[in-house]
Amino acid sequence: MRLYLEDLHVGQRFKSAPHRLEAEEIKEFAAKYDPQPFHLSEDGAAGTLFGSLAASGWHTAALTMRMLVDSVPLADGLIGAELQLAWPKPARPGMELRVFSEILDIVPSRSKPHMAIVTMQSETRDQDGAAVQRVTVKMPVFKRDRG
Amino acid sequence: MRLYLEDLHVGQRFKSAPHRLEAEEIKEFAAKYDPQPFHLSEDGAAGTLFGSLAASGWHTAALTMRMLVDSVPLADGLIGAELQLAWPKPARPGMELRVFSEILDIVPSRSKPHMAIVTMQSETRDQDGAAVQRVTVKMPVFKRDRG
Repeated sequence: MRLYLEDLHVGQRFKSAPHRLEAEEIKEFAAKYDPQPFHLSEDGAAGTLFGSLAASGWHTAALTMRMLVDSVPLADGLIGAELQLAWPKPARPGMELRVFSEILDIVPSRSKPHMAIVTMQSETRDQDGAAVQRVTVKMPVFKRDRG
Repeated sequence: MRLYLEDLHVGQRFKSAPHRLEAEEIKEFAAKYDPQPFHLSEDGAAGTLFGSLAASGWHTAALTMRMLVDSVPLADGLIGAELQLAWPKPARPGMELRVFSEILDIVPSRSKPHMAIVTMQSETRDQDGAAVQRVTVKMPVFKRDRG
């Protein structure tokens, strides 16, 4: 199902399928985009703030986006221009991640009657329910009926 | 050179080497992490808000991190826990991106005399100087001399 503005309400929730995070993909993402010792290898992570291999926060963010695309099927797409992002703890090899989203606010546009700005919060949690990422984003969402 | 807290001051600036963004890498990143039509192909982008192929904001963020690792050589690493992020306009194929960073604030820790929280703002700009991403992050930074 593709969702339009008419299908959304404040308090609406979405839950993604799980993604099991593997050490290999952590190292692969890091080599390409965030080549710091604590993201590249177990040995490199020892003796750093992280202590053992930890995913780049940007890897957690990219995986979260993938899970959002699959779990929040907005018809015109998930398009964010501004957001706040926090990584309360790092994602680690072996974690089973899932994204829980909730619509916090819907503000109709004054100039464009077929559009609203929707505020959504998404929390990425491990298998024990502990958050590894929280993001709050404002997105334009459009009506099915553009009259 | 690896930088410690003693090497930093408010107003200090860093500039990365350029990265030329290619259509192929935009599509490749999107297929893996943000498979929406406007990031996947020229045809898919026509008729959307973007009009033509645009990089995922998370791709811009990942490329920015890569340029930060190369241009802001903190000895203990670039470690962010909370940040604000904006994408004023999308990154497009053929753009030459560069990251300009500035230290905005340095607040010594009360409990840990060898540490401070450093606020850094990084702007990712195209070849004409227009911003495609702005990020403000707070990071722990440590002294060379840990007493």
